[in-house]
Amino acid sequence: MISKQMQREVAGSSAIRAMFLEGKELARQVGPEHVYDFSLGNPMTPVPDSYNQAIIEAVQTESSLELHGYMDNAGYPETRQAVADNLNRRFGTEFEKEHIVMTVGAAGALNVVLKTLLDPGDEVLALAPYFGEYRGYTANHQGILREVRPDIPTFQPDLEDLEAKISEKTKALIINNPVNPTGVVYSEETIRRIASILEKKQREYGREIYMVSDEPYRELVYDGTEVPFLTKYYDNTFVTYSFSKSLSIPGERIGYIAVSPRMADREQALQGLSVANRILGFVNAPSLMQKALIPSLDARTDVDYYDRNRKLIYGKLTELGFTCVKPQGAFYLFVKSPEPEEQKFVEEAKKYHILLVAGSTFSCPGYVRLAYCVSYEMLERSLPAFEKLAEVYRRK
Amino acid sequence: MISKQMQREVAGSSAIRAMFLEGKELARQVGPEHVYDFSLGNPMTPVPDSYNQAIIEAVQTESSLELHGYMDNAGYPETRQAVADNLNRRFGTEFEKEHIVMTVGAAGALNVVLKTLLDPGDEVLALAPYFGEYRGYTANHQGILREVRPDIPTFQPDLEDLEAKISEKTKALIINNPVNPTGVVYSEETIRRIASILEKKQREYGREIYMVSDEPYRELVYDGTEVPFLTKYYDNTFVTYSFSKSLSIPGERIGYIAVSPRMADREQALQGLSVANRILGFVNAPSLMQKALIPSLDARTDVDYYDRNRKLIYGKLTELGFTCVKPQGAFYLFVKSPEPEEQKFVEEAKKYHILLVAGSTFSCPGYVRLAYCVSYEMLERSLPAFEKLAEVYRRK
Repeated sequence: MISKQMQREVAGSSAIRAMFLEGKELARQVGPEHVYDFSLGNPMTPVPDSYNQAIIEAVQTESSLELHGYMDNAGYPETRQAVADNLNRRFGTEFEKEHIVMTVGAAGALNVVLKTLLDPGDEVLALAPYFGEYRGYTANHQGILREVRPDIPTFQPDLEDLEAKISEKTKALIINNPVNPTGVVYSEETIRRIASILEKKQREYGREIYMVSDEPYRELVYDGTEVPFLTKYYDNTFVTYSFSKSLSIPGERIGYIAVSPRMADREQALQGLSVANRILGFVNAPSLMQKALIPSLDARTDVDYYDRNRKLIYGKLTELGFTCVKPQGAFYLFVKSPEPEEQKFVEEAKKYHILLVAGSTFSCPGYVRLAYCVSYEMLERSLPAFEKLAEVYRRK
Repeated sequence: MISKQMQREVAGSSAIRAMFLEGKELARQVGPEHVYDFSLGNPMTPVPDSYNQAIIEAVQTESSLELHGYMDNAGYPETRQAVADNLNRRFGTEFEKEHIVMTVGAAGALNVVLKTLLDPGDEVLALAPYFGEYRGYTANHQGILREVRPDIPTFQPDLEDLEAKISEKTKALIINNPVNPTGVVYSEETIRRIASILEKKQREYGREIYMVSDEPYRELVYDGTEVPFLTKYYDNTFVTYSFSKSLSIPGERIGYIAVSPRMADREQALQGLSVANRILGFVNAPSLMQKALIPSLDARTDVDYYDRNRKLIYGKLTELGFTCVKPQGAFYLFVKSPEPEEQKFVEEAKKYHILLVAGSTFSCPGYVRLAYCVSYEMLERSLPAFEKLAEVYRRK
């Protein structure tokens, strides 16, 4: 007697759960050291000490009632100010604390933004391949998700398709950068061209179209790659961020929304975000975490660790003849399936105890996602299994 | 260009914001010690030491990656087990850890339950007067809120009206106990009769009707009042709870859902809650708080403090001729307005620097809510102002 939508969602998530249980069963049969699980995007590098120290210090020195109490739904003024200052210093932006809303992670932030923006039937665009949760987030607020094709093999968005997909119902475009699942970083040139398409369409339809950036992987970039900061290119922009990956604290549910100081109807949008935060039941971002964050805004987990993994697995897979775009960010590799139905490739890999996720999950069949946020030792141990897997397809 | 619903919500919340700013302006004019703000339901008694100690100990002793990491969306198994054990010990229930889902407070819990249950157009009943946020929570998931009249002056629900309001579209009844804004506790007799009406209607319509309890004030009761634990009276029950009031930690956003072990389709409901937690963007209850909670499940903030306030303000107001039901729980007094339009009474009170909330906010015009979760000293200082206010109405 749960709702029809949730019955479908439960059925869908049962497949993921089945895979998870299958992995556990495999570990029981062959030993966990012989299972190579690349299915989960969980950070595994250390939490910065400064963060844990800040928690202890806050608990020891601050008034408990204030530390654990309600504040303005948008967050503590000092946290919002610290986030604004940090962004301004790093990106030359001009945020004031009023433009920052602290949230329950990026997932919370995206829901708060979409709740604020969407009337029933409004359309939201996502650039395939994309994080499958965007479908649920959009449906939560009665929006309709439409997909924009990628340019293959670069996996930058196909901008002609973007332009064709924008209609008078388009309210927002979600841009995840660096991209889960490809590890691609959309270039400054790409962002400029997207901005110019949106500007043109805004004029054509006489209504606002918002860029909503989702950038939990912003700090996880390699080879000095720069991730464009979107408010610099387009005024109607909401930046959503999570500290889950940069500080390895995904369970704490702490992130923010930064609203462009040049957004149309900015005051109403900011009030909307604050009210949406409350109505959706988040109320506010966890209070102690808001305080503990302040001295860690410049802290980073060990990105070099992921980089070492990236080089090893990308090098090995391309050497073995697999095709994949070289990731510039995040901790994913998006590998072309050597057979048309990638689900069969996922099954074949499982025979060698390699767990991967089908690209269909990200609206991009024919590919699989490999999450290399694993221990280097496991990665090394897995290489012979990839050799055997490659051998299967060489023989075919 | 924000959505139409959010434009209305922002307009509504602007009124509350205006009152808040008016209070600040008043404090500036006459000094904060001469403003008697009874408008906010914020806990103000101390956070138990055990809770702060548990935070420090967890940070110092546990693996940071686990402590701040993802867990099953429903929460850490040890936290869920500890909550189940605690409930079983106190209420003679038979929860297992599988029946407990940790949430981002009770507001998060209610949204997760409603997301799981509601198809568009389903009806949710609330017993007036009720916490106004229920309207937004229901609308989030395309449900329709219907109100059940109170019996006046007891403020127990009018059960004939309840029965009349149940239709073939009714999916859930929200029961807040102790009640915000009246401080009334629904008796065991009331709960038994509600359960029997719901049972009858379930049979009549051949579909499940769920009780959804919202009980953040469970531990804030006086004179030894007992709050019935709903799963003991009705099988299709979700209990939602928050530690905001019992531990004075509303900013931390930590609570849970307890699902009756005898609920119909229980497995599907539990999976639905877990998936809804994820899709709505909560993902999981804040991880460190889940750990810190375990040793504090039996801790309580200083309920005697609120009780002393209750006695003072209830005694004084009734002595002055005001009419109000004696609160048995929570920290609110629901006072009958001495003139038909309670908004005028709110304005009159403001002249004496007393800030109250109109009963219309709780779908009960003709009354005002007074939140006595304030310092005893402020309460004492406010009494002459109440005397002057009473005098105004004696002269009329």
